[in-house]
Amino acid sequence: MKFSFRPTEGAFYELFSRAAQNLVRGTELLNELALPGVDVQSVSDRLTDVEHDSDQITHDLYKKINSTFITPFDREDIYSLGSQLDDVMDHLEAVGNLLYLYGLTELPSLPREMHELVTVLDQQAKITADAMPKLKTMKGLEEYWIEINRLENDGDRAYRMLLVRLFSGEYDALTVLKMKEVADELEAACDAFEHVANTVETITVKES
Amino acid sequence: MKFSFRPTEGAFYELFSRAAQNLVRGTELLNELALPGVDVQSVSDRLTDVEHDSDQITHDLYKKINSTFITPFDREDIYSLGSQLDDVMDHLEAVGNLLYLYGLTELPSLPREMHELVTVLDQQAKITADAMPKLKTMKGLEEYWIEINRLENDGDRAYRMLLVRLFSGEYDALTVLKMKEVADELEAACDAFEHVANTVETITVKES
Amino acid sequence: MKFSFRPTEGAFYELFSRAAQNLVRGTELLNELALPGVDVQSVSDRLTDVEHDSDQITHDLYKKINSTFITPFDREDIYSLGSQLDDVMDHLEAVGNLLYLYGLTELPSLPREMHELVTVLDQQAKITADAMPKLKTMKGLEEYWIEINRLENDGDRAYRMLLVRLFSGEYDALTVLKMKEVADELEAACDAFEHVANTVETITVKES
Repeated sequence: MKFSFRPTEGAFYELFSRAAQNLVRGTELLNELALPGVDVQSVSDRLTDVEHDSDQITHDLYKKINSTFITPFDREDIYSLGSQLDDVMDHLEAVGNLLYLYGLTELPSLPREMHELVTVLDQQAKITADAMPKLKTMKGLEEYWIEINRLENDGDRAYRMLLVRLFSGEYDALTVLKMKEVADELEAACDAFEHVANTVETITVKES
Repeated sequence: MKFSFRPTEGAFYELFSRAAQNLVRGTELLNELALPGVDVQSVSDRLTDVEHDSDQITHDLYKKINSTFITPFDREDIYSLGSQLDDVMDHLEAVGNLLYLYGLTELPSLPREMHELVTVLDQQAKITADAMPKLKTMKGLEEYWIEINRLENDGDRAYRMLLVRLFSGEYDALTVLKMKEVADELEAACDAFEHVANTVETITVKES
Repeated sequence: MKFSFRPTEGAFYELFSRAAQNLVRGTELLNELALPGVDVQSVSDRLTDVEHDSDQITHDLYKKINSTFITPFDREDIYSLGSQLDDVMDHLEAVGNLLYLYGLTELPSLPREMHELVTVLDQQAKITADAMPKLKTMKGLEEYWIEINRLENDGDRAYRMLLVRLFSGEYDALTVLKMKEVADELEAACDAFEHVANTVETITVKES
């Protein structure tokens, strides 16, 4: 393996940015689920494609860490950030996949609170994609993580109200169980965005 | 931002102690749920107040880390400890909030195993509050984390027996699902106390 | 406490290896659950014995860290690896314990996908046990963590198909809930093997 002896920091920021942009593609696909007459299988398949692309980015990032002599910040933090961005994608993909596998699309429509959670995820994805290039200067990141935390609180509230609706008696027990799985993945994605932000915060604190 | 150049360690121990004392207030509120004729909405509201207070303490702690030149131990560990104490509070608040939201208080009484879990949490909170000031000297902490782990095992057993009861056929499926959510938050709170203790252990090992 | 001043690295590798070998014993016990006329209580009891043995190993490891002056790699990583190996065992034990507690053994047979998950765990355990002695030279570990991740993906797929079956209407709601708990522990064990592999990867990257 060839080692580069001067910092090739640019490649790291580039990979983080591409990973975060994939999350925007992911949440945009989830947004399509609110459209009338949506083809859920197609959404699920395209989410799987995006997820594979994210896996490749994570893999490239790890290879880059191993072949780079001087990294822009701690190797472990680069690892954490990469794997946490990947975790978000895994949860987004699971949402589409489960909706399709469980045949939940035969319901006339998904509960409103599910769409609220998708909207939160979409906003989290966009500000995460905006934040990644700022790692270069470490400036303007505080707003980002405060906003991610605020959105995660919104997501939490939407999740709780979703469960209240699921347990209200409106649906039969098996449908409730299926929807609960989807709801849990949506909520895990919200949390996963927060983990990304926490790692960015840790990096910033160390470097300041 | 003004930087203080000599260690102002006292402030850190003070914030950890206040965070842990809030957890005692939290578990005492959960204890009220065992009282006959309890007003669950009022308990839930007061838990939310305590949770907001904890958020403020965590926020103050983070600001303190960023404005302090020399911290009593690794910045990352101070972060971890602060956020883990905050996590416990989030789970305690969720218990009260879900019981209220799901209207579970209309049941004649909650299962005995739920109260056992609350008793475990109450003990964990008290010994955590006793342990925090000991971070100053790093003495007498081994007993604390051994005891937290022992209590977490008790909580685990109570949780398993609670699920056995919930799945026994005594309750209808939707009630089981609601109670399971509450049970999961109680168990997550037990685990979260253990995470706090693990971080204390890590800090002690590093400094020894 | 007596401190040893020259590296007694051997003891660490020995403890990691024994912990991983216990996981092989654990998954072999889970394999017995597929046998016709199996005595589930006996399997559960023997899993508990193995789990106690694992606890003892973890305890010995922690004592060793505290009494050793120079450790073969970062103290925190030794801690992580030890506690993550222990986590796997906790999930394996929970599987046997829950099957017994919930009386799921009165079903004519467990779903095929559950056995697929056990097969994945068995393979993960074996390659983990093979990998631990390689920590000494840090050679040949890349294959191990790639294979663990591949197996974890297999486990994930089996888990999803298991939920599809559980939610298909084949079982009543309470049986679904019980089996779901068991399924979650199986999946958590798969994940926990991946956490072990991630820590091994982190250690290798740091040392390279």
